[in-house]
Amino acid sequence: MEVEGKLLSMGIADHVLMKVALGKEVSRPPVWAMRQAGRYLPQYMAVRKQAGSFKEMIAHPEWAAEVTLQPIELIGVDAAIIFSDILVVAEAMGLNYKLVPNKGPVFDQPIRNLSDLSSLRSISESDNLVDTYDAIRIVSRELHGKCPLIGFAGAPWTLFCYMTEGSGSKTFSHAKRLLYQNPAGSHQLLSAITQATITYLKGQIEAGVNLIQVFDSWAGILSPTDFEEFSLPYIHKICSAIEEVPRIVFAKGAFYALEQLNDLPCEVIGLDWQTHPSFAKRFFPHKALQGNLDPNTLYAAPKEIKARTLQMLDAFPKGKHIANLGHGMYPDIHPDHLKAFVHTVQDYSY
Amino acid sequence: MEVEGKLLSMGIADHVLMKVALGKEVSRPPVWAMRQAGRYLPQYMAVRKQAGSFKEMIAHPEWAAEVTLQPIELIGVDAAIIFSDILVVAEAMGLNYKLVPNKGPVFDQPIRNLSDLSSLRSISESDNLVDTYDAIRIVSRELHGKCPLIGFAGAPWTLFCYMTEGSGSKTFSHAKRLLYQNPAGSHQLLSAITQATITYLKGQIEAGVNLIQVFDSWAGILSPTDFEEFSLPYIHKICSAIEEVPRIVFAKGAFYALEQLNDLPCEVIGLDWQTHPSFAKRFFPHKALQGNLDPNTLYAAPKEIKARTLQMLDAFPKGKHIANLGHGMYPDIHPDHLKAFVHTVQDYSY
Repeated sequence: MEVEGKLLSMGIADHVLMKVALGKEVSRPPVWAMRQAGRYLPQYMAVRKQAGSFKEMIAHPEWAAEVTLQPIELIGVDAAIIFSDILVVAEAMGLNYKLVPNKGPVFDQPIRNLSDLSSLRSISESDNLVDTYDAIRIVSRELHGKCPLIGFAGAPWTLFCYMTEGSGSKTFSHAKRLLYQNPAGSHQLLSAITQATITYLKGQIEAGVNLIQVFDSWAGILSPTDFEEFSLPYIHKICSAIEEVPRIVFAKGAFYALEQLNDLPCEVIGLDWQTHPSFAKRFFPHKALQGNLDPNTLYAAPKEIKARTLQMLDAFPKGKHIANLGHGMYPDIHPDHLKAFVHTVQDYSY
Repeated sequence: MEVEGKLLSMGIADHVLMKVALGKEVSRPPVWAMRQAGRYLPQYMAVRKQAGSFKEMIAHPEWAAEVTLQPIELIGVDAAIIFSDILVVAEAMGLNYKLVPNKGPVFDQPIRNLSDLSSLRSISESDNLVDTYDAIRIVSRELHGKCPLIGFAGAPWTLFCYMTEGSGSKTFSHAKRLLYQNPAGSHQLLSAITQATITYLKGQIEAGVNLIQVFDSWAGILSPTDFEEFSLPYIHKICSAIEEVPRIVFAKGAFYALEQLNDLPCEVIGLDWQTHPSFAKRFFPHKALQGNLDPNTLYAAPKEIKARTLQMLDAFPKGKHIANLGHGMYPDIHPDHLKAFVHTVQDYSY
């Protein structure tokens, strides 16, 4: 198996997280947390203050590397995930955006006319992605095989949402209107994003990530038939193109497509907290599952966190589970509460 | 059957929508649209301008009645739903709120401490609900049995979200934090809301509604176990208390609880557009299903709307379906596009 060969030569294949991703036997589940490098950590806030903004942190590999490594040191999670943003690909394709406080990303000129996509750049010309590659190189060197480093990208449908809507939205009406009014143009844009995403993920792997995760954050606003037409085929293309490292796919809210997700050429499926493990596991006989504690659980007292974590661990199939939250960390959760979750998993044994 | 007796005496039991709700044979599905009295109608906007605000419309029964009747006249839907807001119950319990443009409801003093609920009022003292009862009386008189009038209320969990969070939220972290930090206090508040909701729905029935719908708009942010503990039992209590008219339960995003929803003492289950009818129908052998076209579909050309509507109609069980959208109408949809949907359903035959 090619994947394994390359990983072994990197000295990381024996790590508990890599083993689960590769279908090997383990004695406990590995654990990390989505958005583990984030505002809930005072040490992260210190770097952010120094940098001035989230985007500046991404643009400076040293800062991005520093906050990527913080949760390894401070919380003790089993994997690092490179600090970046799914929207860097949109930017690399020529769409500038700002992060507006309390509002999220706002694009200068969202795409509203799919009949003219000529302004989109091919991403090899872009240099903003190089910042993330450089950050990966620093982290990879610092980690020195201590734990795996995860790379990531947004799924094409999720990027399409932001690029056409221009900002976050509850309904993404602009984005969905385009699907129905111009399906051919929509597919063209989705294909262009897919191509850029593959290039970006290959760049991350080249720089040193050991697994990749594809986030389809807005899968949940599609209907089952639209997901099958406008999202799934592009995730499939990305997974097929990335053969070098294990692949995690997290399609938030796509409970309705568990059967189809099982057909993806990927090793791990991420689950949101709404999907009960005992419901999900019957759909994935050959994949590992990642998730899925409700991040809100971390507001509870550590004793309660422990009880709910154990409940979750018991519900997943043994040896085929990467423990995580069902969504990203919230900024007002105490780091000790994340620790309670992480340590409960690390003390668990099959 | 008591329900049927009362309805027959009101001369409405032969209407296609009532028949489906009561499990009787019909030759085509009935159709209405959530938020059918809304901003997409220029005639609604005219009343709103006159009234000054959404809340003023609710506070004046003549205006509320007028916009309730508009979609019957202008679109030709098969049912009216009284124009009101789920938050009137919170207000009746003593929590004032404002509707802030682009932000939604904002409460003056959200509940953050569940150990003291003494400030909550019993809703019989409140007069804001009387406005809705009065509007129901006007609509009921105007309709004169032409089509059924639907009453509604928010589910206790959804009201709990707003009352404790104080405004809309993507995560409702405050609300969920309370569940985990003070489950006993949470249950106490949920019980108080349930009691108020039953009183309110009984008042609506007394005033003339022919069916009721309970909206659990925020069911989707709970995990399956939390839904079972903090939402489902209260919806169950409401359904059990309302025996006079058929009951529709719409728990948005609660795909994970289809099995449990089937145990509710209600006649109809509303489905969001993410739940494919062919997936859902196996869970509800004895109930009618309502839904579930993606409202975004109405951005498409009428020809495409028709095709997708027919696809949907074919996927639901014959004679056990009330056609609707899977969520409320969006304000920027053309009324003719809703008509295309409604007429496609009305021209369909089993």
